[in-house]
Amino acid sequence: MLNFESDYLEGAHEKILARLVETNQEKLSGYGRDKYSASAIDKIRQATLCPEAEIYFISGGTLTNALVIASLLKKYEGVIAPETGHITTHETGAIEFSGHKVLSLPQTNGKISAEQIREYLEQFWTDDNREFMVFPGMVYLSHPTEYGTLYSQEELKMISAVCQQYKIPLFLDGARLGYGLVSPESDLSLPQIAEYCDVFYIGGTKVGALLGEAIVFTKKNTPDYFIAHMKQQGALLAKGRLLGLQFDTLFTNQLYFQISQHAIDMAMRLKQGLLAKNYRFYLDSPTNQQFVILENKQMEELKRQVAFSFWEKYDEQHTVIRFATSWATKQTEIDELLALL
Amino acid sequence: MLNFESDYLEGAHEKILARLVETNQEKLSGYGRDKYSASAIDKIRQATLCPEAEIYFISGGTLTNALVIASLLKKYEGVIAPETGHITTHETGAIEFSGHKVLSLPQTNGKISAEQIREYLEQFWTDDNREFMVFPGMVYLSHPTEYGTLYSQEELKMISAVCQQYKIPLFLDGARLGYGLVSPESDLSLPQIAEYCDVFYIGGTKVGALLGEAIVFTKKNTPDYFIAHMKQQGALLAKGRLLGLQFDTLFTNQLYFQISQHAIDMAMRLKQGLLAKNYRFYLDSPTNQQFVILENKQMEELKRQVAFSFWEKYDEQHTVIRFATSWATKQTEIDELLALL
Amino acid sequence: MLNFESDYLEGAHEKILARLVETNQEKLSGYGRDKYSASAIDKIRQATLCPEAEIYFISGGTLTNALVIASLLKKYEGVIAPETGHITTHETGAIEFSGHKVLSLPQTNGKISAEQIREYLEQFWTDDNREFMVFPGMVYLSHPTEYGTLYSQEELKMISAVCQQYKIPLFLDGARLGYGLVSPESDLSLPQIAEYCDVFYIGGTKVGALLGEAIVFTKKNTPDYFIAHMKQQGALLAKGRLLGLQFDTLFTNQLYFQISQHAIDMAMRLKQGLLAKNYRFYLDSPTNQQFVILENKQMEELKRQVAFSFWEKYDEQHTVIRFATSWATKQTEIDELLALL
Amino acid sequence: MLNFESDYLEGAHEKILARLVETNQEKLSGYGRDKYSASAIDKIRQATLCPEAEIYFISGGTLTNALVIASLLKKYEGVIAPETGHITTHETGAIEFSGHKVLSLPQTNGKISAEQIREYLEQFWTDDNREFMVFPGMVYLSHPTEYGTLYSQEELKMISAVCQQYKIPLFLDGARLGYGLVSPESDLSLPQIAEYCDVFYIGGTKVGALLGEAIVFTKKNTPDYFIAHMKQQGALLAKGRLLGLQFDTLFTNQLYFQISQHAIDMAMRLKQGLLAKNYRFYLDSPTNQQFVILENKQMEELKRQVAFSFWEKYDEQHTVIRFATSWATKQTEIDELLALL
Repeated sequence: MLNFESDYLEGAHEKILARLVETNQEKLSGYGRDKYSASAIDKIRQATLCPEAEIYFISGGTLTNALVIASLLKKYEGVIAPETGHITTHETGAIEFSGHKVLSLPQTNGKISAEQIREYLEQFWTDDNREFMVFPGMVYLSHPTEYGTLYSQEELKMISAVCQQYKIPLFLDGARLGYGLVSPESDLSLPQIAEYCDVFYIGGTKVGALLGEAIVFTKKNTPDYFIAHMKQQGALLAKGRLLGLQFDTLFTNQLYFQISQHAIDMAMRLKQGLLAKNYRFYLDSPTNQQFVILENKQMEELKRQVAFSFWEKYDEQHTVIRFATSWATKQTEIDELLALL
Repeated sequence: MLNFESDYLEGAHEKILARLVETNQEKLSGYGRDKYSASAIDKIRQATLCPEAEIYFISGGTLTNALVIASLLKKYEGVIAPETGHITTHETGAIEFSGHKVLSLPQTNGKISAEQIREYLEQFWTDDNREFMVFPGMVYLSHPTEYGTLYSQEELKMISAVCQQYKIPLFLDGARLGYGLVSPESDLSLPQIAEYCDVFYIGGTKVGALLGEAIVFTKKNTPDYFIAHMKQQGALLAKGRLLGLQFDTLFTNQLYFQISQHAIDMAMRLKQGLLAKNYRFYLDSPTNQQFVILENKQMEELKRQVAFSFWEKYDEQHTVIRFATSWATKQTEIDELLALL
Repeated sequence: MLNFESDYLEGAHEKILARLVETNQEKLSGYGRDKYSASAIDKIRQATLCPEAEIYFISGGTLTNALVIASLLKKYEGVIAPETGHITTHETGAIEFSGHKVLSLPQTNGKISAEQIREYLEQFWTDDNREFMVFPGMVYLSHPTEYGTLYSQEELKMISAVCQQYKIPLFLDGARLGYGLVSPESDLSLPQIAEYCDVFYIGGTKVGALLGEAIVFTKKNTPDYFIAHMKQQGALLAKGRLLGLQFDTLFTNQLYFQISQHAIDMAMRLKQGLLAKNYRFYLDSPTNQQFVILENKQMEELKRQVAFSFWEKYDEQHTVIRFATSWATKQTEIDELLALL
Repeated sequence: MLNFESDYLEGAHEKILARLVETNQEKLSGYGRDKYSASAIDKIRQATLCPEAEIYFISGGTLTNALVIASLLKKYEGVIAPETGHITTHETGAIEFSGHKVLSLPQTNGKISAEQIREYLEQFWTDDNREFMVFPGMVYLSHPTEYGTLYSQEELKMISAVCQQYKIPLFLDGARLGYGLVSPESDLSLPQIAEYCDVFYIGGTKVGALLGEAIVFTKKNTPDYFIAHMKQQGALLAKGRLLGLQFDTLFTNQLYFQISQHAIDMAMRLKQGLLAKNYRFYLDSPTNQQFVILENKQMEELKRQVAFSFWEKYDEQHTVIRFATSWATKQTEIDELLALL
């Protein structure tokens, strides 16, 4: 059966597996002190054009978000996020578990704007009773967003400026960052992301790794004793090599970008094919997640032959579904899917 | 250079890697809903002779401890543990991070006794002011302990009886469980552990896996919506297959026990060799961690040729160091080490 | 200067002070085990027609909210509340501090409806991915609301029915409960509130006490060892008599209702006076908080002679301000205020 | 019946009640912004000879401890305390509730020494694996201790020096501070306490107030937005006047010291009387708590006529009990008690 349910259906890129096998017998120090982690850090510093970047590898996205947010915020602070942000909706209160409120703002196409953020901050700081409210201590964005959309360079730059003005860090969740960077509609490079954001993470789990995300602190702003924070939140793997080696591989010879490009090529092939067949999209996504509005009956039929994600009810007769491509999607799979639709 | 620093120096057992490669292209459901996780669960149920066991796979030990404890305890409860327990000393307050106190008891050879626990519980429950104290809501043991020692069947049975009497769960941290089960001095089988404990975990990270621990709830006592607890604490891996497949492999054809046996064989060879040379041991460990008392000068010299763990100062002239063997230790390494000593 | 800033400007009702003086030398047990607390509990049981009610006295509203919510929720649960609820906006994240998310729903006149709650719960429980979301584990309402409005008997009954259907407790924040109960537009009695709610609190701080709120668990549903929860959150006063005696006094000879009635009489006199002068109200409040729309210029002038609360910007030229009356407001103060307007 | 159970049996000193009555009708700003709180702050600044002291009033001791500790510590830090410290044993895990571990040290007569603290800190900071342990981020002492004993000036000075050396704050819990300051064996003045401690609190609840503790930050070291911390932990009373006025009264004309002196006079009269009758003391307490070893049979008999606190089992035949005097104890009560013994 065809399967477009998510971008983490397969294991890892074959080069990653090959290197795991190749280095398996080496005795290496634990907790990220191994040479492959060091090498991965070097390569990410180069790829971000940010030589002073401080980089840590974590097993998954929720833990990464919880860790970055809890370690950077003061106890009375919360994090501004779009109402559709992953931390706002789909992490079972992981942020609140660590004591912090997610301050949600209305979204448009999964995004929030510099203007919205500025207004929120301005209103907060001019309110005489602000000590009765949660202090906005950080801004969280996803890029690509949960709807596959992208911030433009201008948008991110302006959000960054607001954050700087109010002296709060800008944190970008890049669980699918590769798919955003190589999108035809992206005008944002990895170095620019490093420039505008105070901290972000480069997603591995959804982009070719078995597991792993790389947190990048870009302004010498890693919280004191971050390793202690990691250990306290259960985020410090004994065999850190497993994460280091994967990122080392992904950032060798542009592999991360190449495999991301493949996913986008597949998504665009699907999108063009659907447009040609007059399918309606819920919104215009330039990345590897495509949101299509199907009649309920057609959806039910399709289910028998294709796995996809239910996204949300559109109206009584229609449903929004999601097709996700990935680094591992085959062109024949796209063609078979299109043939069915 | 020889290296006996820990039991997580290498990657994974070759059979695990082989199966990762073999299954890599399969498209599998995420979050532990894949067939390999299901198969691993079946095999662990068989190995524990506990058909109703409920089993979850987690990336590492600290996260496992924090998750089990936080999900089982009520807010006003804490967990009884030896003063040398991993959660008491070496997890940067991960338990307290989730709001719970570790109620530490004095240890002997890394262990606490049923009698100590009973006294603590009795004193608590007869104190009129108990609502001003943290309620003891669980007992935590490590087996083998942080000193490599083992609970006997009788000891565990009695601790279990106390826990039952006071209706609190007994939780056994089995980060190195394999090394305990096959030790020549062990009289505890895996099914007995499943019988006496309400929940325990089978360590993978230190026993042949790239990463991973298997939590086993033995009495149909999994906390409601445990997946939600997992997600909230960042412990739910997207590619759950990675953990499931490893445990499936480890519990196929007794691999877990075989590789554990190898580590113990190596440790006993080392121990015998050291005894033959009249080395003093800090305590008598029947498992893969051996604690030796060296003169400081000798220790400094040894450091140049062998990596090992500093454990603690013994007196002004002597230091306790630890040699750890593992599933991956080679006999030649033991012999080379003995030759140096 | 006239002062209508809040309903906690003065100390306590004179009868309360008199009894504090009268009983001051008595030696009484601490932590709420004194005879005045016991007597207050009896009287509240009678006033609520709920003989099995379990009642606890707490020093203030935020602590009460945090305590009730944290003690009743499981770790993965959050509390549904209106977006304008006190816990949602004005308690500096006290609920999140204890690890729980406030699940905010859009409000109308400060209220949410049974239908909104039902939809939210239904959607949650039919979502296959619900374990990735915060579980709705309680409903929180304020009565009167932060806008002075009231739930009708029918509205509360229906909300209660939804909560029962989904087996989650309904918690009513009665910081200003007295002012709601005696409002001319109220059709809800205290026994009905006890019937429909699983837990609620009767506000003392804003209704005649020096400080203190009385939590009422109505269905034999007090969390186990609630005193331990109280101590853990710092909510257990050594001299519990101070709270018990005040509620004992307030619930003797209907004092609580009489002084509430006075505040409402004053509020209605103000409201009628303002209506007669054609002032615009932000909404129609039947309780002791009156929200008036003033031209900014007029507001600035008024400020010199009267203290009131800025509520929110209405438009470029207008502002919403709040006048609060209380048990201690004098009729002459209302008349002086009206003369100024 | 005679009652020596605790030092919070009565209401408040009559001067406090008189001022509550006198000022009751004044309309005052909430949340500590009233003139009586301001005046109390001034007087405490004078009494501590610390003009830059920053002072906040809180309703009770547990909340005060939890608030000071949570607001000053970073997430990965814990607080060093004696194993018999109030936060270690008798606050139902209030510190852990806020995410922090209490790092307990062995005590002698309820106290810990500078040397013990130094050793702990030194060992921590020289441990290569310190990021796996809870960072010691504060030292907590009680003065008088839970056993009524006192730190000498020299002892406190040396502890203060260690804290300064390691750059961690010294926090002194002064729930019974008055009784310590006026003890005949005390050589520590209030200004010295302000000099040596970074933060401490002056207990009101046990020394003449209805409720209330005054936190004093002595080194311009109040955590940012402390009011937000207070609100978040439920520690900000609406009618802050209630606390401010009480401390204003206690620090007018030395009232706090006078009433403390009375309690100590009563305790010493009791102590001398018991010594004259050859009673054995558990330890030598120079303050208002006296710990006496009674034969169990005698204890049981005494219980019928006198209320006191059970402290701990001494041996099979004997029990340690506590008699507490207070500002309200009458000389006749002491004499009656002595007559019974």
